Amino acid sequence: MKIVVVGAGAAGLAAATRAKRVNPEAEVIVFEATSEYSRGTCSLPYLLSGELQDPRLLQGIQAETLAERGIDLRLNTKALEIQPHQRRLQTEGESLQYDRLIVSTGARARRPEGWTLPLDSPTAWSLRSLSDVSKIKKAVSDLGVTTVAVIGGGYVGVEFAEALQILGLQVTLFHRQSTLMRSDPDLNSRIVELLRSRGIRVELDTEIRQVEADGKGYCLSGRKAQAGDVQSQHQAVALALGIEPEASLLQSAGARVGSSGAVVVSARGETNLSNVYACGDGVEVPSSRGGPGRWIPLATAAARLGRVCGENAAGGSRRFGSALASLSLRLFTEELGFVGLPQDWQGCQKTPFSWGSPNHPFLRRQGGHGVLFSDPRSGRLRGIQVLGKQASHLVDLVSLCVEQDLTVQDLQEQDFSYNPPLSGLWHPLYLAARTAEKSTRQYSGGY
Amino acid sequence: MKIVVVGAGAAGLAAATRAKRVNPEAEVIVFEATSEYSRGTCSLPYLLSGELQDPRLLQGIQAETLAERGIDLRLNTKALEIQPHQRRLQTEGESLQYDRLIVSTGARARRPEGWTLPLDSPTAWSLRSLSDVSKIKKAVSDLGVTTVAVIGGGYVGVEFAEALQILGLQVTLFHRQSTLMRSDPDLNSRIVELLRSRGIRVELDTEIRQVEADGKGYCLSGRKAQAGDVQSQHQAVALALGIEPEASLLQSAGARVGSSGAVVVSARGETNLSNVYACGDGVEVPSSRGGPGRWIPLATAAARLGRVCGENAAGGSRRFGSALASLSLRLFTEELGFVGLPQDWQGCQKTPFSWGSPNHPFLRRQGGHGVLFSDPRSGRLRGIQVLGKQASHLVDLVSLCVEQDLTVQDLQEQDFSYNPPLSGLWHPLYLAARTAEKSTRQYSGGY
Repeated sequence: MKIVVVGAGAAGLAAATRAKRVNPEAEVIVFEATSEYSRGTCSLPYLLSGELQDPRLLQGIQAETLAERGIDLRLNTKALEIQPHQRRLQTEGESLQYDRLIVSTGARARRPEGWTLPLDSPTAWSLRSLSDVSKIKKAVSDLGVTTVAVIGGGYVGVEFAEALQILGLQVTLFHRQSTLMRSDPDLNSRIVELLRSRGIRVELDTEIRQVEADGKGYCLSGRKAQAGDVQSQHQAVALALGIEPEASLLQSAGARVGSSGAVVVSARGETNLSNVYACGDGVEVPSSRGGPGRWIPLATAAARLGRVCGENAAGGSRRFGSALASLSLRLFTEELGFVGLPQDWQGCQKTPFSWGSPNHPFLRRQGGHGVLFSDPRSGRLRGIQVLGKQASHLVDLVSLCVEQDLTVQDLQEQDFSYNPPLSGLWHPLYLAARTAEKSTRQYSGGY
Repeated sequence: MKIVVVGAGAAGLAAATRAKRVNPEAEVIVFEATSEYSRGTCSLPYLLSGELQDPRLLQGIQAETLAERGIDLRLNTKALEIQPHQRRLQTEGESLQYDRLIVSTGARARRPEGWTLPLDSPTAWSLRSLSDVSKIKKAVSDLGVTTVAVIGGGYVGVEFAEALQILGLQVTLFHRQSTLMRSDPDLNSRIVELLRSRGIRVELDTEIRQVEADGKGYCLSGRKAQAGDVQSQHQAVALALGIEPEASLLQSAGARVGSSGAVVVSARGETNLSNVYACGDGVEVPSSRGGPGRWIPLATAAARLGRVCGENAAGGSRRFGSALASLSLRLFTEELGFVGLPQDWQGCQKTPFSWGSPNHPFLRRQGGHGVLFSDPRSGRLRGIQVLGKQASHLVDLVSLCVEQDLTVQDLQEQDFSYNPPLSGLWHPLYLAARTAEKSTRQYSGGY
């Protein structure tokens, strides 16, 4: 059996290694358009900040290990066309037959429209590859760049801003929305406060409409809501305008794409093309509840779906489970986390909550703030946004609770552990659920 | 309505405050036999170690706050007898009528049998009350005690040993079992190594049979398995022989007790006596699966059941949920956690797992080791033991998974979050579940 994988990111290599594990007799070939493979994109900000020094730390798996496992990795070889009826893949180098094809072409950075900014300038930065990091570091050391505008306040923009600040730059973060990362206003103000305490300037409600190079760097011009035109001067610009699915290879072959522009797959990772699977940031991850999938371009979902594709392509049987867009970030000394997408939170009861105590030697190290989202009638959990020391922990717990369809009542009856240096007697989620329950009761007319 | 509560620990006061909240018209009176109330027993080791300096930090709620909320707290008043048919409680001071009675008399330290050790000696220590802490600190400062034997290697013994070590004493920990805290042998060796690295001597398989005072302190004599008689000399002894339920008040009144000696209650916290509820460490917490309750004397279960009792006694309606003996400890710079009791782990597939990486700047801060317990046929999760940086986090997650009846397959399809400084791409529980699944498959004949 010949299993061909397109794309050597987290998803593609999870698929390849799993396929080979499940069917050691299979021939597994991986084509990658660039020279980078198994690169931990999520770690790029920390390579940039200097917290990770060695680019090899970003490799999930080394080429030698892949070779030892009998996986044939072919770098710098772009896949050009799929002929699904002939089960053939045309690459730059050859045309080859496959029994099963797994496509993980990922996503690409959204490009600004109508800007005169030359994207290949040494002071126009992105953060998608190892070479992006080298370029930024070189500009800082060789050109003496000290000020930078980060454009885009999604989570990549925020991580980008943090890394550049740690690197020693004066950072201004522009975001056209009124809150960073689609956070709730109250939580947003805490996030902004944290960024500003580290010297990052944050300009919300500000849409940058043009970036022009001038002698000293770039002139940004745009519009700030309720304030009018703004202009701002920086030596460098860092773009974090978001990403979009790269689905053209599959789409040209007749694969179905969803409203997001990403490819639609089944819970087994199958596209509508026979013997063709897809995973990674170019795919809508299937919903565990049935119904349409959603485009959730996160490494966790990508890697898990990759593994599902690899197993099934090799003759095994596995279904993809839960994808709730669970996300956590480190934000300087704090953690920030989300479960759910804005559409999940719509129409929900919003319960702000906080935990920890500034006056207690243990609890002041543990505190934080969050917003719990639940169905106003049933009390079922729908998501969370949370900033504080244990945010990633709470994200994982709430993700499980949402997937298991638990209510704010159920959440109060879970057996969470307690130990004074580590937690409070009443778990943060217990406190949140208790508050949420009160409002749910009021909504349903008391008990 | 008059609601009378016996015992002002975490459970009793959770019951009292909840009852008053649910029914603000109710008269709520709390009798406490000692002068201490709402004392965070779990924090005593940290008051002893000096990490918490102010005993008031151990108070969950202050007497003034209780008074403001209209709760009548009567300290130093022992409850002597319940007359359930007359709905009367006889205390040291008076006999009074109740509409609802909530009893939370807690647990008492198990006392050594046949030892000549005088327990009231300034160098014979327990760790159950604020006065115990004062006594120890006084002995160390006034008598110059520098060596101590901790007898008992359950979690209280281990916490006691840690606190005494931090306080500056040379600590020897004796335990009659072959592993501390009923841990798995492999995990136990890591725990012992951690304790020894801090200078604590650990003597396992060693049953102390006699402790005799002599001029310089105490002579301990006992028997070490496969080694014979042992003798050991220490200036002080710290007893952590475990606790037993204090159920005599209810039992004398005709309340049913379980095989543990603790009182049996329904999921609503009701004893078999009309209008009498019970909670706290003297009670078997009801099982969320039906079947007999279990004696799980932990603050979390106590406080939650207390709240259930208070709500129901006041006319509300709430059922106690999950109690899986979820437990976490801080052990110097690590965390240690458990879900389940040894009987839950019996007959389980045991999957050792580890996570983190010593060579990665982020992952070496996060690593740890654990044992996952699952049903060998169905793969359903039954519990965990875990030592490492995120142990309490993993405990909370596994507790949820066990309660929701998830399998090792399900666990691989949960949407946990990932961020390089905080976690690995593959969540520790994912890694554990993956390994466990392999063995389950082998067990069921592979696929």
